[in-house]
This record gives sequence, C-alpha cells and structure tokens, in this order.
Amino acid sequence: MNYRMESDSIGTLEIPEDAYYGVQSYRGMLNFPITGTKLHPDFINNLAKIKKAAALTNEAAGKLERRKAEAIIQACDEITEGKLHDAFIVDAIQGGAGTSANMNANEVIANRALEILGYKKGDYSHLHPNDHVNMAQSTNDVIPTAGKLTVLDLLEPLEKELKRLEKAFLDKSKEFDSVLKMGRTQLEDAVPMRLGQSFHAYASVTHRDIERIHASRKEMYVVNLGGTAIGSAINVPEQYLHQIVPTLSELTGYPVEQAEDLFDATENLDGFVNVSNALKTCGVNLSKICNDLRLLGSGPKTGFGEINLPAKQNGSSIMPGKVNPVIPEVVTQVAYQVAGANTTITMAAEAGQMELNAFEPVIFYNLFGSIAALTGAVQTLTDNCVTGITANEKRCRELLEASVGIVTALNPYIGYKKSAEIAKKSLKTGISVRELVLQEKILSKEEMDVILNPYKMTSPANELKEAVNS
Amino acid sequence: MNYRMESDSIGTLEIPEDAYYGVQSYRGMLNFPITGTKLHPDFINNLAKIKKAAALTNEAAGKLERRKAEAIIQACDEITEGKLHDAFIVDAIQGGAGTSANMNANEVIANRALEILGYKKGDYSHLHPNDHVNMAQSTNDVIPTAGKLTVLDLLEPLEKELKRLEKAFLDKSKEFDSVLKMGRTQLEDAVPMRLGQSFHAYASVTHRDIERIHASRKEMYVVNLGGTAIGSAINVPEQYLHQIVPTLSELTGYPVEQAEDLFDATENLDGFVNVSNALKTCGVNLSKICNDLRLLGSGPKTGFGEINLPAKQNGSSIMPGKVNPVIPEVVTQVAYQVAGANTTITMAAEAGQMELNAFEPVIFYNLFGSIAALTGAVQTLTDNCVTGITANEKRCRELLEASVGIVTALNPYIGYKKSAEIAKKSLKTGISVRELVLQEKILSKEEMDVILNPYKMTSPANELKEAVNS
Amino acid sequence: MNYRMESDSIGTLEIPEDAYYGVQSYRGMLNFPITGTKLHPDFINNLAKIKKAAALTNEAAGKLERRKAEAIIQACDEITEGKLHDAFIVDAIQGGAGTSANMNANEVIANRALEILGYKKGDYSHLHPNDHVNMAQSTNDVIPTAGKLTVLDLLEPLEKELKRLEKAFLDKSKEFDSVLKMGRTQLEDAVPMRLGQSFHAYASVTHRDIERIHASRKEMYVVNLGGTAIGSAINVPEQYLHQIVPTLSELTGYPVEQAEDLFDATENLDGFVNVSNALKTCGVNLSKICNDLRLLGSGPKTGFGEINLPAKQNGSSIMPGKVNPVIPEVVTQVAYQVAGANTTITMAAEAGQMELNAFEPVIFYNLFGSIAALTGAVQTLTDNCVTGITANEKRCRELLEASVGIVTALNPYIGYKKSAEIAKKSLKTGISVRELVLQEKILSKEEMDVILNPYKMTSPANELKEAVNS
Amino acid sequence: MNYRMESDSIGTLEIPEDAYYGVQSYRGMLNFPITGTKLHPDFINNLAKIKKAAALTNEAAGKLERRKAEAIIQACDEITEGKLHDAFIVDAIQGGAGTSANMNANEVIANRALEILGYKKGDYSHLHPNDHVNMAQSTNDVIPTAGKLTVLDLLEPLEKELKRLEKAFLDKSKEFDSVLKMGRTQLEDAVPMRLGQSFHAYASVTHRDIERIHASRKEMYVVNLGGTAIGSAINVPEQYLHQIVPTLSELTGYPVEQAEDLFDATENLDGFVNVSNALKTCGVNLSKICNDLRLLGSGPKTGFGEINLPAKQNGSSIMPGKVNPVIPEVVTQVAYQVAGANTTITMAAEAGQMELNAFEPVIFYNLFGSIAALTGAVQTLTDNCVTGITANEKRCRELLEASVGIVTALNPYIGYKKSAEIAKKSLKTGISVRELVLQEKILSKEEMDVILNPYKMTSPANELKEAVNS
Repeated sequence: MNYRMESDSIGTLEIPEDAYYGVQSYRGMLNFPITGTKLHPDFINNLAKIKKAAALTNEAAGKLERRKAEAIIQACDEITEGKLHDAFIVDAIQGGAGTSANMNANEVIANRALEILGYKKGDYSHLHPNDHVNMAQSTNDVIPTAGKLTVLDLLEPLEKELKRLEKAFLDKSKEFDSVLKMGRTQLEDAVPMRLGQSFHAYASVTHRDIERIHASRKEMYVVNLGGTAIGSAINVPEQYLHQIVPTLSELTGYPVEQAEDLFDATENLDGFVNVSNALKTCGVNLSKICNDLRLLGSGPKTGFGEINLPAKQNGSSIMPGKVNPVIPEVVTQVAYQVAGANTTITMAAEAGQMELNAFEPVIFYNLFGSIAALTGAVQTLTDNCVTGITANEKRCRELLEASVGIVTALNPYIGYKKSAEIAKKSLKTGISVRELVLQEKILSKEEMDVILNPYKMTSPANELKEAVNS
Repeated sequence: MNYRMESDSIGTLEIPEDAYYGVQSYRGMLNFPITGTKLHPDFINNLAKIKKAAALTNEAAGKLERRKAEAIIQACDEITEGKLHDAFIVDAIQGGAGTSANMNANEVIANRALEILGYKKGDYSHLHPNDHVNMAQSTNDVIPTAGKLTVLDLLEPLEKELKRLEKAFLDKSKEFDSVLKMGRTQLEDAVPMRLGQSFHAYASVTHRDIERIHASRKEMYVVNLGGTAIGSAINVPEQYLHQIVPTLSELTGYPVEQAEDLFDATENLDGFVNVSNALKTCGVNLSKICNDLRLLGSGPKTGFGEINLPAKQNGSSIMPGKVNPVIPEVVTQVAYQVAGANTTITMAAEAGQMELNAFEPVIFYNLFGSIAALTGAVQTLTDNCVTGITANEKRCRELLEASVGIVTALNPYIGYKKSAEIAKKSLKTGISVRELVLQEKILSKEEMDVILNPYKMTSPANELKEAVNS
Repeated sequence: MNYRMESDSIGTLEIPEDAYYGVQSYRGMLNFPITGTKLHPDFINNLAKIKKAAALTNEAAGKLERRKAEAIIQACDEITEGKLHDAFIVDAIQGGAGTSANMNANEVIANRALEILGYKKGDYSHLHPNDHVNMAQSTNDVIPTAGKLTVLDLLEPLEKELKRLEKAFLDKSKEFDSVLKMGRTQLEDAVPMRLGQSFHAYASVTHRDIERIHASRKEMYVVNLGGTAIGSAINVPEQYLHQIVPTLSELTGYPVEQAEDLFDATENLDGFVNVSNALKTCGVNLSKICNDLRLLGSGPKTGFGEINLPAKQNGSSIMPGKVNPVIPEVVTQVAYQVAGANTTITMAAEAGQMELNAFEPVIFYNLFGSIAALTGAVQTLTDNCVTGITANEKRCRELLEASVGIVTALNPYIGYKKSAEIAKKSLKTGISVRELVLQEKILSKEEMDVILNPYKMTSPANELKEAVNS
Repeated sequence: MNYRMESDSIGTLEIPEDAYYGVQSYRGMLNFPITGTKLHPDFINNLAKIKKAAALTNEAAGKLERRKAEAIIQACDEITEGKLHDAFIVDAIQGGAGTSANMNANEVIANRALEILGYKKGDYSHLHPNDHVNMAQSTNDVIPTAGKLTVLDLLEPLEKELKRLEKAFLDKSKEFDSVLKMGRTQLEDAVPMRLGQSFHAYASVTHRDIERIHASRKEMYVVNLGGTAIGSAINVPEQYLHQIVPTLSELTGYPVEQAEDLFDATENLDGFVNVSNALKTCGVNLSKICNDLRLLGSGPKTGFGEINLPAKQNGSSIMPGKVNPVIPEVVTQVAYQVAGANTTITMAAEAGQMELNAFEPVIFYNLFGSIAALTGAVQTLTDNCVTGITANEKRCRELLEASVGIVTALNPYIGYKKSAEIAKKSLKTGISVRELVLQEKILSKEEMDVILNPYKMTSPANELKEAVNS
C-alpha cells in the first residue's frame, strides 16, 4: 500500500494514500479500541449536515471562499447520501468529548473536497480540516448538536412504531370486549373483568409513553451550535452566530434554535438524560405488558391459558411442539437494556466538569442504541405478536366460574366479614358462591341474578346493582 | 397491660386494650420487620383525607349513616392535625400493595370513631374498618391516590427551594459578572470567560429542573380513586364514583381528576417513575454544579482557588484550620441517593402484574425519601453555601494570564496550525503568547490589543474583533 | 434552657448546658437536614470501640495520661452499653467523609469523660475532643474502620438467617420429593419434575449466596486505622501504629488487620461495593425464588395453584377471603431496595478523589440499611412463608397429566419432527400423547410404560429408559 | 437466487439454496431486529466446541453413527477455525433463552455436515439439526454453558491487561518515590506525601480487582451441560451424562465440572451477575484512578499540574495546542458502560421464572461487551497513558511549600486549637507556618527541622519525630 505523510501536534504518521480520513482520525482509532462499533450512520450524516450548514453560513458571512464552500458542501452531501461512511474509523466510545469524531468528519470532508477541487488528499494547504471545514466551530458545539439531531432522527420511527402498537392494542381491546374473565391482583383471583379492558389499559399506558417521548424532543431542539469551545462563541463572526442555527434548521427540517445560555447548553447534558428517562419509562411499561402477555398466554395446559400468542418459531431444540413467547421476551430484554443504558447515561451526565461534559460519546452510544433497540422491539411486538393474539374465551369463562371472586359484590349487602366466610367455605367445599348464598338464604335468586352477574361487575356504571340496593 | 381480642380471616389475636390500631395492623407489623421506618406522616395524613372524602361522599350517596360519617370525619381530622400518628405501626416497606397501610388507617379511624360514638375500641359491629371506613374503596385505589397526594405535598417545598437556589445563582452571576477567568474543558485550560457566566449556567440548568419537576406533577393529578379493586369500580355506587374525586379535590386543594382508564391507572405506576426521573435528573445537575464548586474552591494553596466557599464547620478532626466543601459534598451524596432510588423505583414499576402493581410501598419509600432529601440538600446548598460564595478575582486573573488559551483567538488570523505552534512554544519557553506574536511579527500591537483582549473573548457579541478582521 | 458557649474555627455558639454533644456536632446537625435518620446504633458503638482502643493504645504508648484514658474508656463503654446514643445528633448522610460523625463521638466522649473526671461539660482544657479523644486519629481512618466493623456486626445475623432459610428449603425439598409436577420454561409447559427439586434448587442458590456474602467479609477485616489523614500515619507514634489494630481486634473479636497500603485503604471504598454486590446478588436470587413462590401459589382457582403459601393476613380491604403472597412480595421489594442501594454505593465509590473518598456517609447509610432490610426479609420469608408451605399434590398431578410435555421423551425413539406432530395433534384433539402413540403403533404398551413414565423423566439417572433403548 | 424449501412447526419458508443456516435461524433473524449486532465470535466458537463434545460423547455412547459424528466434528472444527461465522445470522439479543442461537448452530453444523457427507443442504433426513447435532442437548443447557466458556475466554486477556497495568503503576510508584507533594482530601490541601505513594495505591487497588475478577471465574467452571431442558437430564443417556463435561473440559482446556444441582444451574444466572459485579467494581476503581490522573494532570497553567499525561492526539478542533486526557476519559466512560451493563444484567437475572431464565441473551450481550470494552480500555490506559506519565517535581514542591498542611504535624506539640490558629494566620498573612512557629517561639529551629520536615511526614515509620518528642 502506498502512504502519504500527515502530521499534527503530536507528530507525523503514515496514512494510506487513498484514505479519506487523516492523521487525527487515525490516532483516534488507535487510542480507543473499545466497542468495535463505529459511529452511528445517522450521527455521521448529521455531522455532515452541520458542516454543510457551517460552510453555507461562513460563505455568506464572507469568511469562506465560494469554491471551498462548494467543495465542502458537495462532500457533505455525498456523506448524507450514504457515501464515505467507511472512512469514519473511530470507535463510538472515545475520549475527548468527541474530538476524534469531529476531526474524522473534518478530515474526510476536507480530503473529499480537496479531491473535488483537484488536489491530492492530505494537501491541507489548499483546504484545511480545522481552518475551513471546522471554521467557526468547535467539537464542543458540533458534537452535542449532532447528537441532538440524531436523537430526533431516531425518535421519529420509534414514535411511529409506538402509535402502531397503541392502535393494535386498541383493536384488540374492541375484539376482546365481550370476553369475560377473572381479574388478578398480586397473582391471586380478584374480581371479574373483560379481556378487552386489559388491552385497553395497554393502549392507555402506551399512549402516555408516546406523549412523554414526544415531549422529550423539546429539549433536543435547543442546540449550542455557535457557542464553539465553551459557549462564549469565541472565533465566531456575528453573522455566523445568528445564522448558523436557522441555516441548520432549514437543512434538517427541525425547528432547532440556539440556546439562550450557551455555556449551560455546552456543559450540561441533562436533555439527553431526559430522553433516556422517557425511553426507560416506556421500557418499564412495555415490559410489564409483555410479562402480562406471557402470563395470560402461559400453558398451554399448566398455565393461565387465557390468550394465545401467535407461534413465530419453534420454541425449543429439545421439546417438540413447544411454542414460547419469544417476542414478549425480547421486548423485556430490550427494556432491561434501556434501563442499563439509563444508568450509564446518568453517571456520564453527572460527571461533567466546568465548561464541558466530555462524556458525550458514551451517552450517545447508549442513547442511540436504546432508541434503535426499542424501535425494533416495538415493531416486532406489534407485527409478530399483538396483532395475532387470540382469546381463549371458553377458558376465561371456566376460570371465572370456578373462582370465588364474585363474592366481593356481596360486601354492600352482607358485609365484609360474612362475605369472607362464604368465600372460605366455597373454596373449602367446592360449592359455588351462588349456591351458598342461596342455601343460607342471604339473597333471593332474583337479587342474585342481578348482584352476582359478573358482566355487571366489570363496568363502573353499574346502575342495576344500585337499583336492587335501593 | 390489658388486651382486647380481635379476629380476622387468619384467626384471633390479643391487641392492647387502648390501641387504636387493630388486628390487621398488628399482623402487618409482625410480618414486615424491614426498614424500622414507619409510614411517612404526610402519607398518613393523605390516607385520612381520602377516608374523609369517602365518608362525605358515601354519606351524600345515602350509603353511610350520618353519625357514622361524622365520627369518621372527626377521626380523620384529628389525624391530619397530627394526632394518632403513633398508632400507625406498620413498616414503610410492606407486602401487599399497601393493604397493611390501608387497614392500619381503617382500623385507627374506626377505633377512634367508635370512641367518639361512645363505643369500645374493637367493637366493630357498630362501625367497621372495612364496611364503613373503607366503604366503596379498595387498597388498590386508596394507596396509589394517597401516594400521589403525598408526592404533590412534598414537591411543593422542593420547588420552592429550587427557585431560591436559582435566584441565588442568578445573584451570584451578577456579582461575578466582571470576574475574568480561564474556562476549562476536560480539566484543561481552554479560553477566557467570566465567573458570572459559570453561575448563570448553574441558574439556567436549575431553571430547567424546576420546569421538569413541575411538569411531572401533571400525572400526579390523575388518580384511580373510585376504581376500587382493579379499576372496574366494583361495589361503588354511581354517585360515589362521580363525586369522590371532586370531593377529594376540594379537601386537598389539588386539581385531581379521575383517570379515564381506571384499569390502566390501577395497574401502572409509571407516573411515579416519571417523577423519580425528574428528581434524578435534577440530582445529576446539582451534583455537577457542586463538583464544580468543589473544584473552583479547591485549595486554598494547591487547588484552583478561584472561589471561596463559606466555612460552615471545622473540616477535619486532625488537620487544623482545614475547611472542607461539606455542603456540596452532601448534595452530591443526595444525588447518588436519588439515583439509587430511581433504580429501585424502576425495577418495582416494571414488576407489576396483571391488574395491579403490588410494589407501591417500596416505590413510595424511595420517592418520598428522595424528595425530602433533595429538598434539604437544596436548602442547605442555598443557605449554607451559594449565598456565601466569594470570588478570588486576583487568583482568577493570574491564572488567566499565565495560560495560553487566548491563542485560540488567533485561529481566524493565522490558522490552527500556526496557532498551535505558538501555544506549544509559549508553554515550553514561558514567553507569553502576546510576546511571541509580537516577536514573530504576526500582528501589530494595536491588532493584538483588540484580538487578544480576553474580555472580548468571553461574549458572543464580539463586534470589535469583527471590525479588526474586516 | 441554660446554655454553655462553645467555639471552633468558625465561631462561637450556644450549646444546651447539659448536652453531651458540642459545637461541631451542632453545626453538623444544622448543615445536614437530609434523611431525618441518625447514625446507625451499631456504628455509634463501633466509634466508641475505636475510641476506646485508641485511648488504651495511646496510654500504653505514654502519650495519654492514665486518668484521662480511663475516663475516656468509661465513656466509651457506656456508649456500647447503649447509653448516650441520643447525644449523637448528626444525620446519617452528611458532608465531609464523616467528620461530623467523628466529632460527634469525640465531643460526646469528651464531655462524658469530663463529667466523670469532675469537670463541667465543655471545659475542654482538661480533656479535649481532638487532642485526647481523637489522639493519633483522623476522621479518615476512624470512619471507614467503624464502617467495616458495623458491616461485620450486621452481616452476622444476615448469614444466620440465610442459613435458616437454606435449611427450610432443604426440609421442603425432602417433604415434596415425591410430588410429581410439570416443569415450566418460559412459562410454558416443559417436562416433568418433582416439586422437591424446585425447593432443592432454592436451597442450592441460597447456599451460594451465603458463601458469597461470607467471602465478602474478608475485605472488611482490612482496616486503615493508624493511617490518620491520608494513610501516611502523620501524628501517629510508632508504638500506636503497630498496636492500635491488634488492640481493636481484641476489643471487637474480629480478626482485623492493618492494611499494607494505607493510602489505598484510605482512598478506595471498593470493599464496600463488593459487600453491596454480594447483597444485591442475594436479593436477585431471593426475588427470583419469591416470584416462583407467587407463581406456584397463584390462584386459588385461576392460577397455577401447585402450592399453598401460609395465610399471614387478610389479603384485601375489599375482596373478602382473599389471601395474598405478602411475604414474598416484601422480599422482592427488599431486593429492589438493595439493588438501588447498590447503584448509590457504586456511584459514591467511583467519586473518590485523590487521597480520600468523602462519600462514605451515603455508602454506609445504604449498606447498613441493605443488610438490615435483607435480614428482616429473610427472617420473615423463612418463618412466615417457607416453613408453612404445603403442596397441592393432586393439582400438580392433574396439570402434569393434562399436558403434552412428556412427548419430549419420545425424541430418541421417533425423532424431534414426529414427536412435534404428536404434540400438536394431542393439543388440538385433546387425545393424550399415550393414546396417540398407541393409535399410531409407534411404541408398544410395555415400552410406553417405561418410556412415558413421568417419574423416570425427573431424574438424571435413567437406567430403565436406557435398558429399553438397547 | 435459488432457494430450497425448509419447514418447521410453524410452516415452510424459502431459504437461499447455498445458505448454511436453516429455517429456524431465518425466523429468528426476522423476529429479532434489535441491536444489529450478531452473536459474539467467541460464543459461536464455544457453541461449536459444545456440539463437538456432544458428538464425541454421543458417538462413544453408541447413540450417534460414527460417520455422522465425524461430519459434525469436522463442521465444528471449521467453525472454531473462524469459518462459517457469517452463517450465524441471529441478533445477539433475542427471545427464548437463545433457542435461535442454538438452532442457528445446529442448522449450520448440520448443513455443513450434510455437505461433507455428500448430501444437499436442507436434506435433514440424513442428518438432522435436532436429532443429531443437538442430540442429548437442549438450548437450556447448551446456551448457558457456551456463555460461561465465552466469559472464561474473554476474562483471560482482561486479567493479562490488568496485570500489565498493575506493573505499570508499580513502576511509576518507584519512579516517583522521591517526588514530595501535597496530599489532598476533599480536594483541599491536606498533608504531605510522595507522588509514588499515589501510584502505589493505584497498583494496590488494581491488584485487588485482579483477585476479584479471577475469583469470579470459579462459578463459570460449573456448567449445567447434560441437564438438558430443565436439569432433569431428560433424553440423556447415562454415559453421556457422565462423559459430556469431562469431554468438554478436555476440548476447552478449562476445568469445567457438572453442577451438582442441575435444576439450580439451569434456572439461576447469578454466576454471571457475580462476574459483572467484579467488572463493575474494577470499573469504579479504574475510573477513580483516571479521575485522579486527570486532576493531577490538569492545567497546564490553571490546574494542579503535578503530572504530565502523554499527548496522544490533538486535544481540540478549535483550541490550538490543547492536549486533553483522552485516555483516562475513555476509561471512565467504559466504567460507566460496565456499570450500566451491570444494571441490565441484574434486572435480567432477577426475572428468571421457574425452571429457566430466558433472558440470557441480553445478559451475554452486556457481559461479553463489558469484558471486551474493559480489556481495550485497560490496554490503552497502560500503553497510551500510564507508562508515559512524567512528574512535575518542581510544581509539586512549590505547591507543597505554599500550603499550610504541615501544620498538622504540630498537633502533638501545641494542640489542635493552637495549630488551627497558626494555620489560619498563615493563610491570612501569607507568612509561612515555619516562620510563625519561630516568631511565636513555639518550637526551636532545631525541633522544627525535625518536626516540620515534610519528607518525614510521608511515612508511617517516623522515628525521628518520636525521638524529639520523648
């Protein structure tokens, strides 16, 4: 392989002649052998969009020659079209607040722009990664801004998937609206309900998650671009300072705005914690739902067996015919993944010092990964599980009728203590609650038909019971 | 001691004759020897308010005799006045979704009401903990509602303290507005700034925390009271169903409203996770600020020494004259406490099953404790630290002048590479950046006075520099 | 109230005349309004033991007058007898690495010693909290040493309770050895097993926890006492340096030894993380067991219903006759509490800086609380749950016979694919696996009696099946 | 592309004709679009080793034809040589306890073995993924065993790197043994020490981590292979049961042994939590060390500046000449990553149910990732940071002499109170402690030379001071 020589403040290194990256990227790659995972492609694209916005703004401000600006812009456009991504060689987790990532972008863009302009790669006297591509920027405003744009990009499909899931739950809540079953609290038989009500509750909590996640976007719109090194906007021409964020807004389509307090926006990463929190809460709720689905679908013969999850793959390598709730299981695992990421993000955000929090890389790695995993998990949950769920109406009914939970409805008529005696007697003797109430002449058959009607017990509006009582 | 006999479904037990609690409280106490901490007093008060609201509503609905209702109400009022709290004997962490806590309230109120009505304690045939005090209620709607009211009660002083802190930071930001100092990124000398800008950033991030915490209240206003056991409102008369929450709203002054989906509101505890998340994020930010204060105040001779934290106590039992940043240190510890509580709350919220999450007690224990600790921490931070901070203006200036960070301002004039050479040379030789620039005839003295003026570098609006440049 | 005046480096304050605490304790109390919880009583006792050991050693080294030493020792002995604890007024969570706690001990002991010697409280010219009680000590060696002793004190009952639990599980594993049931993986019917095997697994994992917790003690025996402020043993006479830890060992009965690297032992708190980790893992396992108990005991009619947990209290305030698994539920909550504490402890241990980790108070608060809560949880689990569990042998058998899981045993004879077909057919038609195998003439009745005997399937040594196969 | 048809219990699917994977792998891939990361290569290799061990053992037990066994073994060997890895198409995080991963291995091995035997891929009548490759195995014993072997494989380089780090710290502790400096507690000036003592403490704590991590291997040696589906060893011939683990031991070189309680070993994943705990604690300690390195190296002009970290890359894209502590920063980020992974692993381990914990995939993903990231972080810390650290001896000395910390040494002679007065006076006036002691005639110059000699203060054995004192 042929090499070109590149040097920085540390010294001189051989770089493969045709490499778009440069010496600083290369050092970054050597310094950080951590995850084996490169930068997220959306993050690379957003770096390119920022560089493009900066070139446009610098050119408009009269600081950057047009032909240089145009070459930079073309290079940036190529990146957002998916090209040159393999020249981004630094690990997702890296030291230095993302300096390596920013320089990797600066170098790749500079070298591609040099090429466009007819120069050789590495010939930075014509167009320099720092002086031109990074003009009026700092790692410290570019990286957090790129992080926020990437979060926004990734949240969109997640919200879409969550809405599809909410709809799937709502559809099932209608489909199962008439399926009477026993409710369970603390895993013990409680009082009657309808299966549709369970799925409606799943829709309701999912709706809340959508709202929370959507609300967390708000802080992502506030960026520190223009603040450069510490928020003081050092080396930033006034025109650039005011135009860079509107330009970025136009390029990305997001209503981004420049933070009022650029120091705050540079040194604090709480907005990312806030997004991660919303994701974690969503994971908590999804996992609860999925645990329910696994419980309700447990069996087929030794479990609850009230619903059937669609079979998506052989359940076992040894147990023939076994079907396992693999989709809900993977969702729960993703919930734990997201919760762990939240711990990491929390610790990293807390560790900021003075004018910068240098731990953005680990935050982004975990946050981007959380959103993507959650998106995949929700999609597979909707398509490979929820939409295919069927109810075992007969089983639901049998369990309901075997249980004594309807005894609760007797409280207002015979009191808690007497009701408890009947419940215990029924469980002990196997005689049904209805039968015992009749035997002991507590209520007439007519009253019973109204009071112990399980369907009536499932709904807040319970007029008939009132009628009897009056 | 004399005893009365009380019995429940499990059997009969001796209860001290004059005890307001009853057999179920007593069993709860024996079953749960966990933290040694009792229920939070505000939580007890909110249980009493709910019981009062229920009595009022049941009486209005014609279900509860007036004299019983009045006795119950008087008992509840006594509790909220701070009486009878020592009859609440169950541990804060308990099994069963708070059944023991709810029954402890039911029993104490019943026994006090019996006393008011002229009966003996334990003579439940006249007024029964379940049938009358708990009428139309279930642990499963009472406990989460009481939890939400308690969170609201506790958040109020926290928000007040945070606002005081924000103001203290703003005051300091003005006081220190003219103190020039070196900014630091990654603990390394960066570029000039003013000390007031640091404190303004602290105010900005605190403001965001106030907003987040305030917003988290919203979900606390939505309660499941009226849903009883599982959200189906079993045993709830229609009038009660519609009146109980408005009555509670009137009693508490909070705009509480009944959840639209009572099943969801009974089985999901994500609203508490959401509050805990907001607290955790606040802790993260406070800890970052406090770490900064400790760094800025480190010394007096071997640290940064840019500010003085007020001495609040001897710093050491062995090192005479030592003053330590004990207030920021305690705030950071509280931040870790709150983050740990968030882990607990997350795990507990995830573990809900079917129609109930039985792990409310551990959630409340951690959430109430988090809010209270944070409130105390913020109060002491404001009063015993921030308001007394002074700046070491001279030290700030000396460090600024010793550093080479102003070299960054040369980038637009001589490029990154040449600037870096000057920086390295200055550090190596000890010759100042100014001097080197003059020596090498890079800029004239007049240009230097404008370009290397550190004050100019601290502010986004940097017109003069522009002027020179054009 | 009458007051005495006390002063420290900060200034002069009024202290209640008869208070054993002094000005530094008082400032500490004012500075840290955090948890409302005072120092753990065992921690106070261990502070007293260390102070006694120091007095003995200083006296032996000729540095402390005998009569002063004796007064100090008497005061310390009174504390370990449980006296004077209410003079320890500082909050458990406090700034400054426990300086307030150490000074609280120094002041209480000094004032009580002054009293013993016939002087007035506060008359420190005769016996000084720092110069005499704290002689040759620093907060920085006293507090971590007291923390380690307290952990050791608290772990003892926990280990004892865990051993009782292990035995209870083993007893049940024998009692249930012949109860045939269906095993479940991923909540789906798997293959036959015996109920005793479940409880044996619970015993096995508990045994491992006992070993891990016991092993974690090892690091608690290594103390930094004698290292004073930073591990350099400044102000420590040589004789004291070598004698203080052996003296402490004699007083406490623990084989404590002085750390070889006193700097390391002063600045790193990883030993506490290690104990907390062992507790967390124990919590994880206990919670898994308790979730199993809740699942196995779910019902009585709509759940698994394979075992009965003893009824320990009414399960519901509204649902008569309901019995809930409150003991397993509280254990799971404690597991979450301990996991949250582990997060806090991890964050605090990571935050040490240079020669000290100042965040011991929050570590101790969480670690002591974790051990105590776990001890209570395990005790109530053993006594109020495990020992009273009974098996529903009939139900176990019925579920086993209804299921198709025995089909797995056919794999070696007819292959996975054919077995799967039979399983599906059995589930679809309701015809038993046995019947289908006979119908399809796959195996003879004699072979079936051997191959499809579920009891044989439960045990690794499965000679008969081998016999048939050969 | 040409396809072959494959079917399983779910139905029939087109599989690319030349694919080594089969229908079940393919379904798994479709079902789990989670991380985008495939199975860890070491994990794939260990699956192959287990399959080889099983083939050898089954063949020896007379259950598997020799030619089939040989083909399977050859296929397995090819995998461990690094071939066929791209046929492993399932996501690292998947539902179902790793059934997809196990079946992916079974299918790839079966198809390669078919090829070796001269059959077409997919022609499973000649050699079946379940009946032959998976013979006498279950996902539930294969996957956890493969996980443990992988942890063992990955821990080896980590331990090696940690030992190199320990040695690097020890080397530096000797190199810096004579560098006098001020110790700091709570970031405030404390008492004198030597820089070598700091690095010795880093070596000591690293040594402890090595021991903990090494000890955590123990539980990895205990495997449940042979227990099949739930630990009952269903479908396992006796000879296989006893020979499979010894055979695996021989193949891997690890002293693996079969668990005594196979049910326990199948359903509990606490051994993995235990390893993760050890890693997390190591991360905590490394991060503390790295924070120290960043503090000690902060500057160059406005920080502590006591050491120089080697420059490994340009520190900033905007600030010329800036060198940042990027290596320690990345280590701290890895510590947070590992701590977050620990949260995930803890939650997943807690969520096991009955005879299986289905959440192994997320545990392995996090555990393997933690070890690998930690290994890379430690390697770069040693090679790119620690070995190149130099001391600023002059700066250390200047700071020491400017501070008043030596006043602590006066305590035994003039008492804490008087010492504190001198300290305050010195700080206020700028007159040195030595000078003030002379001025006030507290000690003679000769005594001072001994007592206030900072070098003497750094070492526990402090005979001269004793001499003066006596």
